[in-house]
Amino acid sequence: MRYRATVAYDGTAYYGFQRQREGVATVQATLEEALTRIAGEAVRLKAAGRTDTGVHARGQVIAFDLSWDHGIGALRRALNANLPADIAVRDVAEAAPQFHPRFDAQWRLYIYTIDNRPVRHPLHRLYRWHVPQPLDLSGMNEAAALLIGTHDFATFGQPPQGENTVRQVREAGWSRDEQVLTFRITANAFLQRMVRSIVGALKVVGEGRWSVAEFEAALRARDRSRAAQTAPPQGLMLAAVEYSEDKS
Amino acid sequence: MRYRATVAYDGTAYYGFQRQREGVATVQATLEEALTRIAGEAVRLKAAGRTDTGVHARGQVIAFDLSWDHGIGALRRALNANLPADIAVRDVAEAAPQFHPRFDAQWRLYIYTIDNRPVRHPLHRLYRWHVPQPLDLSGMNEAAALLIGTHDFATFGQPPQGENTVRQVREAGWSRDEQVLTFRITANAFLQRMVRSIVGALKVVGEGRWSVAEFEAALRARDRSRAAQTAPPQGLMLAAVEYSEDKS
Repeated sequence: MRYRATVAYDGTAYYGFQRQREGVATVQATLEEALTRIAGEAVRLKAAGRTDTGVHARGQVIAFDLSWDHGIGALRRALNANLPADIAVRDVAEAAPQFHPRFDAQWRLYIYTIDNRPVRHPLHRLYRWHVPQPLDLSGMNEAAALLIGTHDFATFGQPPQGENTVRQVREAGWSRDEQVLTFRITANAFLQRMVRSIVGALKVVGEGRWSVAEFEAALRARDRSRAAQTAPPQGLMLAAVEYSEDKS
Repeated sequence: MRYRATVAYDGTAYYGFQRQREGVATVQATLEEALTRIAGEAVRLKAAGRTDTGVHARGQVIAFDLSWDHGIGALRRALNANLPADIAVRDVAEAAPQFHPRFDAQWRLYIYTIDNRPVRHPLHRLYRWHVPQPLDLSGMNEAAALLIGTHDFATFGQPPQGENTVRQVREAGWSRDEQVLTFRITANAFLQRMVRSIVGALKVVGEGRWSVAEFEAALRARDRSRAAQTAPPQGLMLAAVEYSEDKS
């Protein structure tokens, strides 16, 4: 039986999601070890997104094949009992035999959080980017709106494979809650480093060092060397992945 | 000149606030090292509260004597540049020569946070107590209201020195934001472990294992052996300390 699970993790201690050579701590290897322990034989998984070192998730989706006779509630509990405190399986469901969490995904939502206060906050250092200088949210949102639609995003990232750098963005915008700035961006797929590269450029707009027109020129240039800085990983979270069979 | 500073810290990596023997990581020792580096001579500090291992703060208040000619903004920046990422000085002010952050404090606010969802959340594990079973907030608030006023709290803690276990509680209550339960308690002073012991007992009320009357009987017994469990440290934060000269 193929199962699908939603996974949350704190990426601080991991060299990203994707399995690397033996001995390198990754989220995938840790999940596969837990699955293998439960199954009594080697289990491999597929995932919706390959998050980078230090990036977090609350809505990563994985799929794996397993023989299991005890129900999906017991499977979730068995997995969580075999996972470290910084990884948790939020829910498990039976999936179609051909379900693939990456190829079948329709939309991905990433959330990036900036702590925009003068002094760094120790309790948020692992989950937000601390930017001490005041940021102008209206300019950042004007620039973010330019991302919506189907564009060539070559300025803001490399394709994970192949040459295609065109992606479709459905939602991109900032909101503010006191000194916390939150960026939501939903796209059909993302280039490598794309969200962090976009956030780094929007922050430069927020500082007033780039005009919205300069941001637009960088986007239109389709040239990776025209990007501004890349925002650090700890502010980024893979929040949700949406599939066509989702009715919600 | 005596200075007063508000300090925030992530208590995860420290054996509590109070300095211990050489080589034991404490918040106080780390702050004193930073002060000593800046001053070029040994500096000792006083603090409003001695938080336990793993307990956090966003409003700890400290005082220290220092010769410093560069203004309080530069002092704050110099301190933060000499502190690790899990400790930060939020603000610095000049204080009266006799100011003592513990003896002069009028009120202390602690906040305790419970993550009340079925599955543990990796991103909150260091800052909340995960309680999977549903908790009845109305019972917990009915019991919490019994704490308000001047009572002998011997059931819920030991005095840090002397015999007096009478404390005055000004505010004690829970609020809920979706699956996050937040307890605020303000008192003139606290016994050792008092907030965590109260939270542990209120959780037992929330589970329905204690009635409000049983909670009240435990409080009235003034007997440490009548307490329920002690809540774990990571959900607790010293949020604010109030002084009589504060006009706000």
